[in-house]
Amino acid sequence: MDIQSELKKIGLELKDVEGYTEDMGYFKGEADAVVLARSTEDVVKVMRFANEKGIPVIPWGRGTSVTGAVTAIKGGIIIDMSPMNRIIDFSDEDWIIHVEAGVVLDEINAFLRPRGFFFPPDPASSFMCSIGGATSEGSGGMHCVKYGTMKDWVLATRMVLPDGTTVKVGEPLHKNRVGYDLTHLVIGSEGTLGVITEVWLKVVPIPSYKIKRVLAFFDSEEDIGRTIINLRKNRVQPEIAEYMDLKVLEAVKRSFNIETHGVGALLIDVPEFETEKLSMSLSNPSYVKVAESEEEKEELYKARSYAYLAVKSISKYAMSEDIVVPISKLPNVFKKIRELEENYGMECPIVGHIGDGNLHPIILYDDSNKDKAEAFFRDLCKYVIDEGGSITGEHGVGIQKRELAIRQIEVHNGRTLLELMKGIKSVFDKKGIMNPYKQVV
Amino acid sequence: MDIQSELKKIGLELKDVEGYTEDMGYFKGEADAVVLARSTEDVVKVMRFANEKGIPVIPWGRGTSVTGAVTAIKGGIIIDMSPMNRIIDFSDEDWIIHVEAGVVLDEINAFLRPRGFFFPPDPASSFMCSIGGATSEGSGGMHCVKYGTMKDWVLATRMVLPDGTTVKVGEPLHKNRVGYDLTHLVIGSEGTLGVITEVWLKVVPIPSYKIKRVLAFFDSEEDIGRTIINLRKNRVQPEIAEYMDLKVLEAVKRSFNIETHGVGALLIDVPEFETEKLSMSLSNPSYVKVAESEEEKEELYKARSYAYLAVKSISKYAMSEDIVVPISKLPNVFKKIRELEENYGMECPIVGHIGDGNLHPIILYDDSNKDKAEAFFRDLCKYVIDEGGSITGEHGVGIQKRELAIRQIEVHNGRTLLELMKGIKSVFDKKGIMNPYKQVV
Repeated sequence: MDIQSELKKIGLELKDVEGYTEDMGYFKGEADAVVLARSTEDVVKVMRFANEKGIPVIPWGRGTSVTGAVTAIKGGIIIDMSPMNRIIDFSDEDWIIHVEAGVVLDEINAFLRPRGFFFPPDPASSFMCSIGGATSEGSGGMHCVKYGTMKDWVLATRMVLPDGTTVKVGEPLHKNRVGYDLTHLVIGSEGTLGVITEVWLKVVPIPSYKIKRVLAFFDSEEDIGRTIINLRKNRVQPEIAEYMDLKVLEAVKRSFNIETHGVGALLIDVPEFETEKLSMSLSNPSYVKVAESEEEKEELYKARSYAYLAVKSISKYAMSEDIVVPISKLPNVFKKIRELEENYGMECPIVGHIGDGNLHPIILYDDSNKDKAEAFFRDLCKYVIDEGGSITGEHGVGIQKRELAIRQIEVHNGRTLLELMKGIKSVFDKKGIMNPYKQVV
Repeated sequence: MDIQSELKKIGLELKDVEGYTEDMGYFKGEADAVVLARSTEDVVKVMRFANEKGIPVIPWGRGTSVTGAVTAIKGGIIIDMSPMNRIIDFSDEDWIIHVEAGVVLDEINAFLRPRGFFFPPDPASSFMCSIGGATSEGSGGMHCVKYGTMKDWVLATRMVLPDGTTVKVGEPLHKNRVGYDLTHLVIGSEGTLGVITEVWLKVVPIPSYKIKRVLAFFDSEEDIGRTIINLRKNRVQPEIAEYMDLKVLEAVKRSFNIETHGVGALLIDVPEFETEKLSMSLSNPSYVKVAESEEEKEELYKARSYAYLAVKSISKYAMSEDIVVPISKLPNVFKKIRELEENYGMECPIVGHIGDGNLHPIILYDDSNKDKAEAFFRDLCKYVIDEGGSITGEHGVGIQKRELAIRQIEVHNGRTLLELMKGIKSVFDKKGIMNPYKQVV
């Protein structure tokens, strides 16, 4: 069957598949066709056709996955949601914004900020990722240490199920207790349950208090872990609490005016009324820079946002990890990563949302040592599982972490939980056509 | 079969069924047996036995449901979780507390507050409800306007599935993206998916900024709704924003030293640095009382907490509603309730968490007019559904709202969503023994 001709026959607009062969984590796939979705009706048409023929369907926001969540690894139809990019409605009384799935995340904030509001989850890809993708991936970002990830901000979605039925999942209300909570089942399901076409999000006012932004340098990663523990023990809720090690700082320095000292730095925002407690919490800082102007604040934030791309640019390939450990285990996890670096003879700069125990160690490799990089990655993930952590805090499972994610569930939750997830997948997608071979289902 | 003898034979401790025939909403049931759960093992024993014989099982925290969620309406075994009341672990580094399901909610805060932390969801029954019950019901309370409900605070649960298998659902971590989010499926599932035996909760520091508490009186409910709209438009995030109408205030006054003026009052907490914006937001207040001392603050909070019990004490029966409407529709919903009062010739004092659009109109009735009270209730719920609201924000569905909840899903979400919920129920509970005839499944 010529899938492309069939799709054209039912009035769908196709794109060249060449633009959709790789995500940002270098995971490859080859779609049989790429459909541009201009409306929910287009999505319905694709799903009815694909369900009847048993063809895989992969929703594609902007292709910013780093885990292979959006590539057509065994063929099928990619639905590009980017044309559905309208902001449908916003209420400054209800503090809810209703958007189409293809809207770029930063456009939501560009709309909200002049009105005095913002949408907190801010993945590093926010300048290009779609809100539908961020919902499917349960994305996080710098502000999540205070505000939580996508799961804390999505109230409802409209989605097209594998059989072509459209449903609204959840209620665009701040409270609702009718029925089971399927909204959170959809968040983080990585396109395996249906295609999200619209999203209702909570928003919040930009804080009215002043925020202090500091960049604190340290001579040991022990002290860096200790500082985060101290912040917790001193009951300080930071607005952001980020780590960049020396290699990351040096990579960032190529494009941004940023200082480098010691082994690395913490970028921390706290409300001004918590400044004293922040100072008390810093464990042997070697140097502390306080951002004096709004411009300086902005520059530091942008520098940190750019860190992953900066590190990617200094190596042929970069494998970004996304581990989470209990705060109490931060000093140990640093030691482990440095041990693995030495054992494997590889570099692994560390950046990440350290304030909630979420680190992105980035394993650098080239064509000669991809296998070693993957072994490094697996060793680290296994260590994290043994320590009671998670192998992903915000990037998701995709195809990259499928086996390790299954292992984590078996060790932490019990094999039965995995069976329940597979059972739920079957309830939504009897024929198994939605983004197959992804997540743990 | 003599269920009680069979349960004794396998070493379980029984209680007299007489203490378990009614919840706090007067919903009645008659269990064949009541088992005291002293450990997860006890729960496993009950589930294996019940699953084999096809006997319904109803988890019971402290019986504080107001919707019939915990009564054995068609027989079966009630599992009383109250003996499982240990605080297992708390980390002031991870800001996570791990407790058994039978712990009373206020005991968690009694443990946390001297350590500088608190657990925000605070249902009016917090002095007696269990944390397992609050999780199953997705409960709310006064602090939820700022902090959200149980769904925003439960990270993981341990539960016994209908076939007796024990699983941990979720991860006790601030971020985790492995697998589907089944934690939120369990929150609010009202005991229809399994028995929760342990819960991991996020906690937060007690705010370090000062809080202003005011009781503002108004001469019209139009102005009361308008004040909440103004707060939103002025981008004020209150810590609490509660309403008590005059009848509620008069009932509360019997036990508390509280003033009464106009048609009712808003009890509002804001951070001290938002005082000015609060003053700007009050729409034609007739009188504003500012709490001057900690004692006065505490007294006002307690008075509001006591409101439902106070109203219950002035009528033979009281049917507490739990509607949620978009903030923009608050003035209209007041008008509708007063219209219904007049049409039915019945009294309906209103109290509730007005800050997030969640009101508890309490329909007063006696043995002579129960049918009219139920018609009033149905009319109000139908109005709310038509206005895009929800018929429950925190009390849940139970048996009370089953039909109306199904209607809400059909109107707002599509019948298909209901089928998905039923499908998921079957994945967990093939024989349908977990708390049958409750929720929408």
